[in-house]
Amino acid sequence: MKKILVIHGPNLHLLGKRQPAIYGKTTLKQINAELLKIAKRRKVALTIKQTNVEGEIVNLITKNKHRYQGLLINPAAYTHTSVAIRDAIVASGIPTVEVHLSNIYMREEFRQKSLISGVAKGTVLGFGPKSYILGLEALIDII
Amino acid sequence: MKKILVIHGPNLHLLGKRQPAIYGKTTLKQINAELLKIAKRRKVALTIKQTNVEGEIVNLITKNKHRYQGLLINPAAYTHTSVAIRDAIVASGIPTVEVHLSNIYMREEFRQKSLISGVAKGTVLGFGPKSYILGLEALIDII
Amino acid sequence: MKKILVIHGPNLHLLGKRQPAIYGKTTLKQINAELLKIAKRRKVALTIKQTNVEGEIVNLITKNKHRYQGLLINPAAYTHTSVAIRDAIVASGIPTVEVHLSNIYMREEFRQKSLISGVAKGTVLGFGPKSYILGLEALIDII
Amino acid sequence: MKKILVIHGPNLHLLGKRQPAIYGKTTLKQINAELLKIAKRRKVALTIKQTNVEGEIVNLITKNKHRYQGLLINPAAYTHTSVAIRDAIVASGIPTVEVHLSNIYMREEFRQKSLISGVAKGTVLGFGPKSYILGLEALIDII
Amino acid sequence: MKKILVIHGPNLHLLGKRQPAIYGKTTLKQINAELLKIAKRRKVALTIKQTNVEGEIVNLITKNKHRYQGLLINPAAYTHTSVAIRDAIVASGIPTVEVHLSNIYMREEFRQKSLISGVAKGTVLGFGPKSYILGLEALIDII
Amino acid sequence: MKKILVIHGPNLHLLGKRQPAIYGKTTLKQINAELLKIAKRRKVALTIKQTNVEGEIVNLITKNKHRYQGLLINPAAYTHTSVAIRDAIVASGIPTVEVHLSNIYMREEFRQKSLISGVAKGTVLGFGPKSYILGLEALIDII
Amino acid sequence: MKKILVIHGPNLHLLGKRQPAIYGKTTLKQINAELLKIAKRRKVALTIKQTNVEGEIVNLITKNKHRYQGLLINPAAYTHTSVAIRDAIVASGIPTVEVHLSNIYMREEFRQKSLISGVAKGTVLGFGPKSYILGLEALIDII
Amino acid sequence: MKKILVIHGPNLHLLGKRQPAIYGKTTLKQINAELLKIAKRRKVALTIKQTNVEGEIVNLITKNKHRYQGLLINPAAYTHTSVAIRDAIVASGIPTVEVHLSNIYMREEFRQKSLISGVAKGTVLGFGPKSYILGLEALIDII
Amino acid sequence: MKKILVIHGPNLHLLGKRQPAIYGKTTLKQINAELLKIAKRRKVALTIKQTNVEGEIVNLITKNKHRYQGLLINPAAYTHTSVAIRDAIVASGIPTVEVHLSNIYMREEFRQKSLISGVAKGTVLGFGPKSYILGLEALIDII
Amino acid sequence: MKKILVIHGPNLHLLGKRQPAIYGKTTLKQINAELLKIAKRRKVALTIKQTNVEGEIVNLITKNKHRYQGLLINPAAYTHTSVAIRDAIVASGIPTVEVHLSNIYMREEFRQKSLISGVAKGTVLGFGPKSYILGLEALIDII
Amino acid sequence: MKKILVIHGPNLHLLGKRQPAIYGKTTLKQINAELLKIAKRRKVALTIKQTNVEGEIVNLITKNKHRYQGLLINPAAYTHTSVAIRDAIVASGIPTVEVHLSNIYMREEFRQKSLISGVAKGTVLGFGPKSYILGLEALIDII
Amino acid sequence: MKKILVIHGPNLHLLGKRQPAIYGKTTLKQINAELLKIAKRRKVALTIKQTNVEGEIVNLITKNKHRYQGLLINPAAYTHTSVAIRDAIVASGIPTVEVHLSNIYMREEFRQKSLISGVAKGTVLGFGPKSYILGLEALIDII
Repeated sequence: MKKILVIHGPNLHLLGKRQPAIYGKTTLKQINAELLKIAKRRKVALTIKQTNVEGEIVNLITKNKHRYQGLLINPAAYTHTSVAIRDAIVASGIPTVEVHLSNIYMREEFRQKSLISGVAKGTVLGFGPKSYILGLEALIDII
Repeated sequence: MKKILVIHGPNLHLLGKRQPAIYGKTTLKQINAELLKIAKRRKVALTIKQTNVEGEIVNLITKNKHRYQGLLINPAAYTHTSVAIRDAIVASGIPTVEVHLSNIYMREEFRQKSLISGVAKGTVLGFGPKSYILGLEALIDII
Repeated sequence: MKKILVIHGPNLHLLGKRQPAIYGKTTLKQINAELLKIAKRRKVALTIKQTNVEGEIVNLITKNKHRYQGLLINPAAYTHTSVAIRDAIVASGIPTVEVHLSNIYMREEFRQKSLISGVAKGTVLGFGPKSYILGLEALIDII
Repeated sequence: MKKILVIHGPNLHLLGKRQPAIYGKTTLKQINAELLKIAKRRKVALTIKQTNVEGEIVNLITKNKHRYQGLLINPAAYTHTSVAIRDAIVASGIPTVEVHLSNIYMREEFRQKSLISGVAKGTVLGFGPKSYILGLEALIDII
Repeated sequence: MKKILVIHGPNLHLLGKRQPAIYGKTTLKQINAELLKIAKRRKVALTIKQTNVEGEIVNLITKNKHRYQGLLINPAAYTHTSVAIRDAIVASGIPTVEVHLSNIYMREEFRQKSLISGVAKGTVLGFGPKSYILGLEALIDII
Repeated sequence: MKKILVIHGPNLHLLGKRQPAIYGKTTLKQINAELLKIAKRRKVALTIKQTNVEGEIVNLITKNKHRYQGLLINPAAYTHTSVAIRDAIVASGIPTVEVHLSNIYMREEFRQKSLISGVAKGTVLGFGPKSYILGLEALIDII
Repeated sequence: MKKILVIHGPNLHLLGKRQPAIYGKTTLKQINAELLKIAKRRKVALTIKQTNVEGEIVNLITKNKHRYQGLLINPAAYTHTSVAIRDAIVASGIPTVEVHLSNIYMREEFRQKSLISGVAKGTVLGFGPKSYILGLEALIDII
Repeated sequence: MKKILVIHGPNLHLLGKRQPAIYGKTTLKQINAELLKIAKRRKVALTIKQTNVEGEIVNLITKNKHRYQGLLINPAAYTHTSVAIRDAIVASGIPTVEVHLSNIYMREEFRQKSLISGVAKGTVLGFGPKSYILGLEALIDII
Repeated sequence: MKKILVIHGPNLHLLGKRQPAIYGKTTLKQINAELLKIAKRRKVALTIKQTNVEGEIVNLITKNKHRYQGLLINPAAYTHTSVAIRDAIVASGIPTVEVHLSNIYMREEFRQKSLISGVAKGTVLGFGPKSYILGLEALIDII
Repeated sequence: MKKILVIHGPNLHLLGKRQPAIYGKTTLKQINAELLKIAKRRKVALTIKQTNVEGEIVNLITKNKHRYQGLLINPAAYTHTSVAIRDAIVASGIPTVEVHLSNIYMREEFRQKSLISGVAKGTVLGFGPKSYILGLEALIDII
Repeated sequence: MKKILVIHGPNLHLLGKRQPAIYGKTTLKQINAELLKIAKRRKVALTIKQTNVEGEIVNLITKNKHRYQGLLINPAAYTHTSVAIRDAIVASGIPTVEVHLSNIYMREEFRQKSLISGVAKGTVLGFGPKSYILGLEALIDII
Repeated sequence: MKKILVIHGPNLHLLGKRQPAIYGKTTLKQINAELLKIAKRRKVALTIKQTNVEGEIVNLITKNKHRYQGLLINPAAYTHTSVAIRDAIVASGIPTVEVHLSNIYMREEFRQKSLISGVAKGTVLGFGPKSYILGLEALIDII
């Protein structure tokens, strides 16, 4: 049974709890439940983590005892600044799908470039929680 | 029954026919067949067009007699240069999903910006023909 | 009797039909009627065209059988990207007035430069449909 | 009876007096006479000022005892450098039309951006003294 | 008794009189009253000036008969464009505190750099009229 | 009783201990004592933290059990690079005041932009330890 | 017998007809006659097209029934803006020579970069009609 | 007898009075005395002005009753920001020599470009008060 | 006996374990063994750390109980983004040598600038594991 | 009989001798033989030089006793950096053709601009040794 | 008796011989004669050199047996590109005056920056041959 | 026995002779003696050259009769401007180590990029004369 690591980047633990007018009412818990349902149907195992620390994301990707066959990541704010996560993805060699809830190309200029897209297999962005669903389906198809 | 317009931008008619080592062996015909299968299952009607002319894409989006409820577009080379297609999407008011076969953020610098992403609901890129499948599913969910 | 060519660029056929809250309720037909009234009063002949295709605008400017004495053009989205229309205006040698409904210098950065202004006699922008009226009056005075 | 303030920016007092080969033979006095004729016909009152001092333009716009209903301004060299005049127009709340004798987008690069266009209702440029006439007509229509 | 010069830059005389929705209802007079109260308590003398002319600000800083021991300045629009005021502050050698009502780093890009910050002892910005109060307190502590 | 979170960013634990010629002799402990004195007088509760880890700052802002009514932050080196802290401040919705000991606009170019200023209520910079005092007073006034 | 496609881009149909002072008196017809003479001598077949529409150039390159062995193209204004023509050349795999009548590096800055040069075998520019002659000779040698 | 206008720009009235360590001990009065001595020897008349107001410099250049045959100007801080003074020099048609006490190309980056050099006959910079002497000699030779 | 701190930045724990074709077969353990051999011969004590967390690197440099006399650091991905590590090196005052396995100036553009070089005594790059050896020898010579 | 100077810039003496896989097997000697054959047929005299020193290229162009009627130059690396060679071509007034073996617009960014193209009559690039042949033919036609 | 080295940079040997319409009719020989006359009157010795080779200029400045007390240099084309000459001036420690015949700030953009100005005592530019005269006088005053 | 070429770039012949406060007291002669000692111990032959002429460095690298097995180069000022030396290193195919006495990333911005680093095996910088020692040791290890 294939194993997939799901990483939620900084501030995503607040999803659905604060400012629902902006970020929607879906919580991270609900997104995770959806992802686990798909995993069950598609017969893959998920490990799901949320962390606000850039270096811990690097740890999660590179220090796992049992190598994962796929990585689903929403790098959030680190999308735009982290060369370290980019390097971790390359160094680990794990096939990666990048997802974003919002359309980062509709936002401030400093958000309109992704250091992660260039090392991901593919990217899904702008569909809200649905971005995760599409991203996971695509990742399972790839691996 | 909802109607969706699918537009393949410039040079995509060559897909799978030339340089299969680079672009894969899947032809546009095969992609279209896949899209029609999904459309049938999800009970939406598809109109599929390919054109190499920027202005004809504008025509397709804005001059259709019967208004579409959704637009699935791979703007290809016009992604990076066409303000006219961007304006057409905004002016038509049709919910739009942008797809790309390749990861444009892995390619030449002049391809690393999309004039379309900022007016699309969401974007799927980098999964090859699978980008279309994911994009259509997401579009049907939205509309 | 002097002849003037009026060209409406991409997406302008939608004027007044969609999103009136943003673009106003005046249709292109109404603007054209206004222009023809002025033409009658000032005793010039108008040929009015709308097209979404960049190359057709080049054709209109350079392939007309009977040379025009003036060109009134709203290049819309092509304002910012078309070297070809710029070259056509220069090559045809027809005195040209550029008009814009909106103030392009209040909008997105990629709209804040015009490739056409540098080869037009003058520019009128930001007055809505009134921009056309002022532009035509100025053009007739020049030619 | 509506009141309109007309401001001629720096160096415009020299118009028609020096280097007529470049700037034409029309003097500022003649332009003002033309403007007053239109004002009479359209039944508005004009106050016309010329000054070379940036801060005095700010004073004229913001310190007038009797509020004006419209502002017609050729900011000349301050077009490209004056945040203060831009702020004065916004703070005063007076509908403003910006005019230029020459086509500033045909000149040196440091002239190819206007800090004023973004806060004016509209802009007329490139028609020589005729730019003022068109600008005043448009301003009267707006207010 | 120490003397402090307070300079309000261009357009600040309008404060609280126009567009209260944006700029608040506090007038410059009220701010000045607040400043004078602090001055009394802290036993310093204030000279308060408002001018819209860049060169007059230079005059105020460099031509005062009696040298001031401190300068509290809101350079407003000249913040972003005036090398002359910057040079005046350096040449006068008077310890300077820069204040802004609004957070200039939340506004248009051309406002997101200050030529004055680099020669001021410190800067207080974004607190509305309160910025002046904090700035004056800090200035008195320094001198 | 209102609660305020005070965060000292990376390297600030060294304050006053090393290179006093450059950074002054005031230690972080002394600054904290000053802040607590003000808090007592103004009747607010302070929680004071220092950390060198970007993600821990995000944790402090977003994971506190009892929501704070205000945030006083010196983001130090992260001022210029952390989109994650910027997002945390926005997502938490806590009114924030940014302080800096030095005038960052007098230093290296890469320090002359703040990602935090755009989401803070206000900023106080350049007054040394006094920046904290002014910042806290302003923050208490706001909340 | 090898087949070569010759494409003249936008506005080149006007060659020699208007503004001979600038563009010379040689017409496109005369250039084509010269090219056909060379073709006869070198025993290759030429298909010669002129079009003002970017997408039609893409069509010509990619939709020809009988594959050409070489492409001689003067992309004119599209040289600087067309990613679509660049992609068409790459996708078709036809060896390509780019020619320009004028020296584009002596002209406006926006003309001083070619999107086509990077995918052409070679480029000949600045020799007027002679550029075509040299380009065709070189192309025949290559194929 | 030829007349020359000498303009000292903003802050130059402080020369030699403050911060002699940086600016030297020579006062503006002494420089003027030197210039008058040369004028006497070379038999030209000098009019010498110092002002801190940009617009007054424009006035001096363009509003003088008796036209000058030459202009010697140290635009100081306005060197880098004043399009208005540049335009005044061009519009007046007076042969102009630009001088600077310091080497502006050794200072901050925003000082390393001169809007005036491009319209002056020549420039002398970096020699302290001697720059004026050399500049006046050169100007008298030219006119 | 002098003490030197050796810090290996993010992803370096994977060295020699994955993708040996790219990164070589030498493991971090082997590099460390080499460094310890040199330390023994040169009679200095080494403390060797690897961490993926930016803030922990700051902690290592600034929070060590016993001050080190030298720092040998391969900041890896943080080379290009970490102002915090730069500040830590300056604040600690420890003489520092920066090393890189690869030649960062042969790689992607965002890697072609180092925030650390400007505060290090010297840099050794591009020699693979040998970079560490050379760097340590140089550091011991310096301290 | 007309005289043409042929200059081969830096490193071209290595042509065909080293790294034939990249640069081809044709030596400079062979290219020169080809050029001399053409010269014989076209009845012009050639002087052929190779030098690695920028200033010697300037000498060759400007210090020849007998003025040449044409210059064929491959400036190689100096293409991108030498204002001196550009000035030499302009000052000598000799009609010049620039050639390059490779397509410089396919290479590193710092090679994608030519200081020479702007002063040459025309440029031929990308055809390998054939570029010289075409360039010489074109040059002879011009002079 | 003090010794001054005069260096004329690349292409200046052509002065007055070619294109007199542009560069004037004064030859380098005549300029040198003028300089020698001044030298005689002012009692300094001149060594005058012209060379087109950048490295020879470095040699002249740094390898002279008898140290010069002053350097008068017109670096011509090397003004804009030579870090080596800049370093030579600094390393030699000889007081240097930079002169230019033309006003380099009126010419192409790549000429509008001088690498030499930043290390020269002063610069004289735009006065034609007179620039040398003024420069030498100033240099003698300094040394 | 392997042969290594050592090249000292422009101005390095002055090392230790002038401005010892800045550049140290070690002369080039002393550095060369150190290098020869290492060469003796490591059993390689050294050829050591210093030149100020860019093209002579190209000659040294590419025209040596007996091919060298390694190149140790301090390109000094040419580091930042010489494409020709870069090309020479690539064309010669000799393994190269680049050294710098100072840390070029601590100096002026135009020195903060090396055209040589991208084609060298490795770089050692900032250790003064010690940079040469480390560089030679590394080079011998490589070859």
